[in-house]
Amino acid sequence: MARLPGSHSVIVPAGYERLDLTGVRRWLAAQPALSARLGGAPDTWQIREVSDGNLNVVYVVTGSGGGVCVKQSLPYVRVAGESWPMPLERAYFEQLYLRISEPYVSGLAPTLLHYDSERFAMAMELLAEHIILRRGLIAGHRYPLAARCVAEYIARRAFATSVLCDPFEQVNERLAAFSRNHALLRITVDLIFTHPYLVNERNRWTTPQLDDVVRGLRTDAELKAAVARLGHRFLTVQETLLHGDLHTGSIMVTATDTRVIDAEFAAYGPIGFDLGLFVGNLLMAYFSQPGHATTRDERLEHGEWILAQIGEFWGEFVAKFDALWSAPRVGDGYPSAFFTSPPDAKAFARERERWFSLLFADTLGYAGAEIIRRIVGFAHNLDFESIADSNMRGDLEKRALAFARQLIVGPEAFSVVDDVLNGARRQS
Amino acid sequence: MARLPGSHSVIVPAGYERLDLTGVRRWLAAQPALSARLGGAPDTWQIREVSDGNLNVVYVVTGSGGGVCVKQSLPYVRVAGESWPMPLERAYFEQLYLRISEPYVSGLAPTLLHYDSERFAMAMELLAEHIILRRGLIAGHRYPLAARCVAEYIARRAFATSVLCDPFEQVNERLAAFSRNHALLRITVDLIFTHPYLVNERNRWTTPQLDDVVRGLRTDAELKAAVARLGHRFLTVQETLLHGDLHTGSIMVTATDTRVIDAEFAAYGPIGFDLGLFVGNLLMAYFSQPGHATTRDERLEHGEWILAQIGEFWGEFVAKFDALWSAPRVGDGYPSAFFTSPPDAKAFARERERWFSLLFADTLGYAGAEIIRRIVGFAHNLDFESIADSNMRGDLEKRALAFARQLIVGPEAFSVVDDVLNGARRQS
Repeated sequence: MARLPGSHSVIVPAGYERLDLTGVRRWLAAQPALSARLGGAPDTWQIREVSDGNLNVVYVVTGSGGGVCVKQSLPYVRVAGESWPMPLERAYFEQLYLRISEPYVSGLAPTLLHYDSERFAMAMELLAEHIILRRGLIAGHRYPLAARCVAEYIARRAFATSVLCDPFEQVNERLAAFSRNHALLRITVDLIFTHPYLVNERNRWTTPQLDDVVRGLRTDAELKAAVARLGHRFLTVQETLLHGDLHTGSIMVTATDTRVIDAEFAAYGPIGFDLGLFVGNLLMAYFSQPGHATTRDERLEHGEWILAQIGEFWGEFVAKFDALWSAPRVGDGYPSAFFTSPPDAKAFARERERWFSLLFADTLGYAGAEIIRRIVGFAHNLDFESIADSNMRGDLEKRALAFARQLIVGPEAFSVVDDVLNGARRQS
Repeated sequence: MARLPGSHSVIVPAGYERLDLTGVRRWLAAQPALSARLGGAPDTWQIREVSDGNLNVVYVVTGSGGGVCVKQSLPYVRVAGESWPMPLERAYFEQLYLRISEPYVSGLAPTLLHYDSERFAMAMELLAEHIILRRGLIAGHRYPLAARCVAEYIARRAFATSVLCDPFEQVNERLAAFSRNHALLRITVDLIFTHPYLVNERNRWTTPQLDDVVRGLRTDAELKAAVARLGHRFLTVQETLLHGDLHTGSIMVTATDTRVIDAEFAAYGPIGFDLGLFVGNLLMAYFSQPGHATTRDERLEHGEWILAQIGEFWGEFVAKFDALWSAPRVGDGYPSAFFTSPPDAKAFARERERWFSLLFADTLGYAGAEIIRRIVGFAHNLDFESIADSNMRGDLEKRALAFARQLIVGPEAFSVVDDVLNGARRQS
């Protein structure tokens, strides 16, 4: 173990070296399969840093034959610097998640090509034609398949890693592994479920426009109790392997293809958490649209199109998950052998309906928590951040925050997804 | 690894030897602290086998200075024999549970004196004056402190091992360890949540008296859906370290002392599971009383006393758990920092009330599932088994089963504990 120069708290293991442009080239050249994929001599490869998330460093590498994407853990939070140390192991959990989920979501995630456990670095399929969904939505583009693809991705992976699908012995092995993803779980617990409701130096918001609202969050007893319940459920309801950070910045799209990336937050948790993060980010995309309006495009239609995606997403998720759950399975959860006769099938269908209805409330709660933390916490979204006019931005953020509160404290007011879309329209 | 003679499926590691009477004496003599506790020369020690549970072999050893209790895992289920192999590791999980829970429940469990990881054997404080609570209740004895002590035991340990009390990092380390207690979790999943509702060779019941009822369970779609929900919650709601087998046969009592034993089923799960097993066993003690009546004692008062213990138990559990939860804590679940002002405290109190009300429904469900599996599944209770008249036994078992069904499919009909006691009276 060695300390990084200039730091008293950032510690790295002996084999670790941070891959700079030269280092990436050397690292790729040492891997025959990756070199072959790129083609030509290493010094002909084009390498550029494209780090976009908050934590890691990412390179896009192209050669005469093809490309790869390289992602490496830093021993600290990239956007915060060495003042915020972060264990390197997040790369281990991400590649483990990719390996486990790959059989169920192939075509909906990038293929893992190589993992280097000494350098905490991985090479993945390059998605050269794709852009980040969030950027596309801000630019006013439509991706007609994206919401359904994300729904299918969550449904397949959430089902496959649960005791509905497998005997609990297999599930518990994975649960044990991911329950040690402490550093990233700590980020979620602190940044989503705790800091936004307290005075914390990492919080920031559009000031002074939101000052009163932020003070209000800290004294909103009903909201804090409901957020605490969601946070407690996040830590104790370990029903599926979550992606753990499934916002619109973790999705890459073209007009015809959708891939979910950046799974370093992977851990067991409640299914509604992934669903809620995606819904919350679509709602933020919706609420922020007036901030991206131009004289030629008021963004009214685009906002409506985004809202419709929430409906598509939920409907597709329920259809896909329910189909998997109602088919014969070997999982210990709701054993198939219990439900063989027509009356059994009816009772089982009622039970699943009840379960989806509780999941819907959970999803809305997590969506609300995600909206709040993205507006008043540490990590903000470009949806709002890219609105230069701070009065306009603050005004839109206030509307989103007010709706988020409704989702968290009163999810029972929204019995179907259309209720949510209408509620958002009323608030916008 | 070596196969046990005469078996094709029972495998034991090299260092393992089954401790017979001679082996126990030699084993204790080799441990200076245990020898000193017993006093005198090893050949003066009295050793007798007292195996009472279904799984392990247990010896009581006394010398001129004192006594110890020795418990060893067998590579199979003791009461079933070598046809039902069972990994030895259950002793490891039991001693780990004892070590973790000891600081919180000292005086309410036997002290662990020694653990031998090669022989999967442990020595514990001897409870020479104690008898098994179940046997005492069958004999018509009262233990005025027992229910409150068990409530305190569960409250202290359930709280201390949860994210309400500790940062999740500490909780997740234990969760990871106990999630590998596969063999015993498999017993719970199969014997409590699955087999009783299917045709299975391990099931047995008072026949022919209960034949129709047992057939009815297998076609009771509403019941099966509700039991499946409880089983799924057992496997996915990992909120506390459970004892996992907390029936009246796992409790040793005198008039003034109560100790919880036999924690080899320890695993993370929903708090209501431990509570429900204890309540279910008190209800079986109640329903079985007429089978133990004599001309001098109809057992009406004793039955009422047992019912009252359920009230004492729940009341004490809520009081103790709530006191721990509402005090300042460092746990990530419902962070203390959220609830500092008087309005915060009010909202937090409402939230805890809501939580206890959901926990009550969970407790009743698990109580019902425990009653059903003890009457029609593999492992029966002496409460009913010791009733020689099979018509009488079958009749009482039917009443208990009918009440168990109410608890499982309609817990919302019981809003306070008195509703449960009145319901039991009506059904008895």
